[in-house]
Amino acid sequence: MTSKDLFEQIKKKQSFLCIGLDTDIRKIPSFLLDTADPIFAFNKEIIDSTNQYAVAYKPNLAFYESMGVTGWNSLEKTVNYIRFKYPDIFIIADAKRGDIGNTSTLYARAFFDTMNFDAVTVAPYMGEDSVKPFLTYVDKWVILLALTSNKGASDFQFIKENGVFLFEQVIKKSMSWGNSDNMMYVVGATQAEMLTEIRKIIPDHFLLIPGVGEQGGNLSEVAAKGMNSQCGLLVNSSRQIIYASSEKDFAEKAKLAAKEVQTEMHKALACIIHEKCSPLK
Amino acid sequence: MTSKDLFEQIKKKQSFLCIGLDTDIRKIPSFLLDTADPIFAFNKEIIDSTNQYAVAYKPNLAFYESMGVTGWNSLEKTVNYIRFKYPDIFIIADAKRGDIGNTSTLYARAFFDTMNFDAVTVAPYMGEDSVKPFLTYVDKWVILLALTSNKGASDFQFIKENGVFLFEQVIKKSMSWGNSDNMMYVVGATQAEMLTEIRKIIPDHFLLIPGVGEQGGNLSEVAAKGMNSQCGLLVNSSRQIIYASSEKDFAEKAKLAAKEVQTEMHKALACIIHEKCSPLK
Repeated sequence: MTSKDLFEQIKKKQSFLCIGLDTDIRKIPSFLLDTADPIFAFNKEIIDSTNQYAVAYKPNLAFYESMGVTGWNSLEKTVNYIRFKYPDIFIIADAKRGDIGNTSTLYARAFFDTMNFDAVTVAPYMGEDSVKPFLTYVDKWVILLALTSNKGASDFQFIKENGVFLFEQVIKKSMSWGNSDNMMYVVGATQAEMLTEIRKIIPDHFLLIPGVGEQGGNLSEVAAKGMNSQCGLLVNSSRQIIYASSEKDFAEKAKLAAKEVQTEMHKALACIIHEKCSPLK
Repeated sequence: MTSKDLFEQIKKKQSFLCIGLDTDIRKIPSFLLDTADPIFAFNKEIIDSTNQYAVAYKPNLAFYESMGVTGWNSLEKTVNYIRFKYPDIFIIADAKRGDIGNTSTLYARAFFDTMNFDAVTVAPYMGEDSVKPFLTYVDKWVILLALTSNKGASDFQFIKENGVFLFEQVIKKSMSWGNSDNMMYVVGATQAEMLTEIRKIIPDHFLLIPGVGEQGGNLSEVAAKGMNSQCGLLVNSSRQIIYASSEKDFAEKAKLAAKEVQTEMHKALACIIHEKCSPLK
């Protein structure tokens, strides 16, 4: 999927919502535990009820790995289900991978060949040769960690050399490894005050923004500071949507929660779609 | 396993060799492809033939993930096989994980509860709360990336703030998150010239040293500069050992390759075990 295709979907659905499938066997409604594959059963219901409001789903690998082979099987079924039932949806492996080139090549094989993800999140610590193998695939994306949403982001990401923060160096250096059609960056919604500076470096790239909802990030602030003329944002919400209810009505409540976010996004998009205003002109 | 237990094993086997199980379906001897589980069949033979010369095995997650559910199944079988047949062996998940606290908790569950690894490699970019969940387990280890063996290490790890490199800041800050009985650090064998400085910061911690063999690192230089009075080193070799032959004799050739490395290690250990010399006094 190209950035143009993604923007088409955003306009069509009036949404730049990514729903995080952080599906935890200990948190899903208990009645699902009697089904053959509770994780997949949960995901399927969530996807069927929310897909009209979301342009992307983001399974978080940790949650599937925590169940070993069984979880990995639920993950593959989830990706295949989205791919065939909702082919226009962008699917992100939130995996935070990254290793020496020889190993990253195998991670790329895992997420792009063996499974049919559109994108994978990658950690930048090991540098260029840990990222490049993912960029050899046509129509696939690297989403590189830049400035994360968590408290620990302040431990190293703000280290400054010659007036430039580490996360800025990550963006500046990695820009040349790919382009705005195969690289996005992770910027936490809790770091919205830095979005203006980040947009000066990468005006055109899509940003994946986690941290709205449970983590405290603010959607309207993110949209105001981060949106570009092609939207350029995927804002993720996980727990706030998928765990909106722990009862029989969990899918219906997830739908309402997704719709609520999409309604806000519709307003933000009015700016660029109807040219009523011009963010980041 | 404590650091004391690990040193006991090192003395007993006269070896600080870790064998990387980077098992690639495209590289293993072709006759194994007819078996029910070629990856496990390969690992089993390698482990049976090399365990007397190694104190640790390090499955590299990318290689298993590249095969999806099938690969994950081979991984679980491999870990269980080592755990029950060779209970004194230290088992490392080379996974380079790290995410927000809520997610790292699930990765810890995956590697320490669902699977019975002793240690997991973790990337430091996201800071303290991405590492801490792994440290809540008794007798389990985090092996944090400090200075990696690849070319891309120079992209960000040498960024300098107030005269301190990023990789040094990672070590200095993270030291307080755990202790020398639950944290090790990755330092590439190709970075041996930095070992002296690193040992000034962390004289007591174990270091996991990849990059000997295919990547060009030198064992005797690593031992001279990195060893402490409890050895303090696990030196990894992967391809050089496990792919020593692609024929029927692959396990036998792997044994010879492991023995060759162990012979060198035996000499290096003579220093501290027989007190013939005193490295890092």
